[in-house]
Amino acid sequence: MVIMEKLLYTSKIKVRYYETDKMGVVHHSNYIRYFEVARTEAMAAIGCAYRDIENSGILMPVISVNCEYRFPAYYADELTVKTFLQRITGARMVFAYQVFNAEGKLLATGNTVLAFIHSDSRRPVRMPAAIRDILINL
Amino acid sequence: MVIMEKLLYTSKIKVRYYETDKMGVVHHSNYIRYFEVARTEAMAAIGCAYRDIENSGILMPVISVNCEYRFPAYYADELTVKTFLQRITGARMVFAYQVFNAEGKLLATGNTVLAFIHSDSRRPVRMPAAIRDILINL
Amino acid sequence: MVIMEKLLYTSKIKVRYYETDKMGVVHHSNYIRYFEVARTEAMAAIGCAYRDIENSGILMPVISVNCEYRFPAYYADELTVKTFLQRITGARMVFAYQVFNAEGKLLATGNTVLAFIHSDSRRPVRMPAAIRDILINL
Amino acid sequence: MVIMEKLLYTSKIKVRYYETDKMGVVHHSNYIRYFEVARTEAMAAIGCAYRDIENSGILMPVISVNCEYRFPAYYADELTVKTFLQRITGARMVFAYQVFNAEGKLLATGNTVLAFIHSDSRRPVRMPAAIRDILINL
Repeated sequence: MVIMEKLLYTSKIKVRYYETDKMGVVHHSNYIRYFEVARTEAMAAIGCAYRDIENSGILMPVISVNCEYRFPAYYADELTVKTFLQRITGARMVFAYQVFNAEGKLLATGNTVLAFIHSDSRRPVRMPAAIRDILINL
Repeated sequence: MVIMEKLLYTSKIKVRYYETDKMGVVHHSNYIRYFEVARTEAMAAIGCAYRDIENSGILMPVISVNCEYRFPAYYADELTVKTFLQRITGARMVFAYQVFNAEGKLLATGNTVLAFIHSDSRRPVRMPAAIRDILINL
Repeated sequence: MVIMEKLLYTSKIKVRYYETDKMGVVHHSNYIRYFEVARTEAMAAIGCAYRDIENSGILMPVISVNCEYRFPAYYADELTVKTFLQRITGARMVFAYQVFNAEGKLLATGNTVLAFIHSDSRRPVRMPAAIRDILINL
Repeated sequence: MVIMEKLLYTSKIKVRYYETDKMGVVHHSNYIRYFEVARTEAMAAIGCAYRDIENSGILMPVISVNCEYRFPAYYADELTVKTFLQRITGARMVFAYQVFNAEGKLLATGNTVLAFIHSDSRRPVRMPAAIRDILINL
């Protein structure tokens, strides 16, 4: 998690009540969902809205996720999530994330690896050229 | 919620940690999800497995839900959910639910109204004859 | 659901991917969560931030919820949720909600009844005077 | 993820409808929740019920999670989750997981690192002796 190559976008996410658990903090599984929210915004920001990708017949399943938790987040916290493009290959995109609270404390880091598949055949495909062109020219 | 016509099934659901919130109890939204789990089991029990219904090209969207909360449920509680068929019409099924904890205390009651639509057209359809036959002969 | 007494706030909520289900639409349970997000924003907007209420030793459990679903919401939809104060009594607040999509179509309506309890004793209490004063002067 | 030291428990988890997403499969974030369900059952099975640990004043926050996704799970699938104790240190427990579908296909693997903190001070503590004794004698 050291190399955070290219910052794509900075998201603001407000912690929702139902995301907390009886420990009084945000349940750890929700950071994986925050990553998804942040990634959605990041992709839209660079011109690759995920909804459009799906509408074009390509799905991008998450094939790997990891997250390290340093400090808890609390109800109503205004989180900042930075989404980085960490690496691309012909058939993979690796995103990295940093989650900060309003005081700027780094709460969590993580990354996700996404693949490309056809929505009909569900078979792996290479990254669509339109996405590749955008990523190469970031 | 007085009339609970026909008991279809009694489900056992164990409260999961992520279903709790910072109040220390099960978040109210999860009862709606427990209803779905219980309804799924109830329909399978009477020979109308919802997976098979979807595979036959029919979807059953929830068009109304309500829930009354009397007492809280806690992490690791073993809940009992009774699912009743409350009413059927040509195009609707109304299910009612009672949620009990392990001491037999009634924690919540609710009901849901489900409709039938074609999975392709998303247009309303009448209840499939195969389901109707099962329900009439319960 | 006819009477929507006092509009408190208009929230914008963007549909998240994980909120959809295999039917391709927002799972019905998530509207209950949208209501909570909208209510949180509405209460903060009128000067009764729920986090502050909890910090003062009062919890506001939801004791009843209902929702009617008219049309589905989809991934990445920009929803508008209007939160109304429908009724108050000495110990209850009733909120009503209307959920619209970006085209202004009314997708769902609902309401929730909230009570007041002490966070330590978990016993019912009357509405705190500070909240009552704000509500009466809306 | 190669070394799966000690199998603690084999859980059965049925996929719930709300756990699916518009891709038609279980949303990736839910595997993190399945891990928690499986870990809860595994700890109870060896005599360390997590509810009892919390009641004794110790919390076990997840400080790291990772998951690799090989094949999707579908609505109503009967999953088998094997929970392994992978490693313990004075202040950490590392659990590993394997998720299989009913045909025995390995769908996902993962692990989680848990720490121990006091529920009041929220300060790290060493593993309680009662837990250590159980783990050492597995």
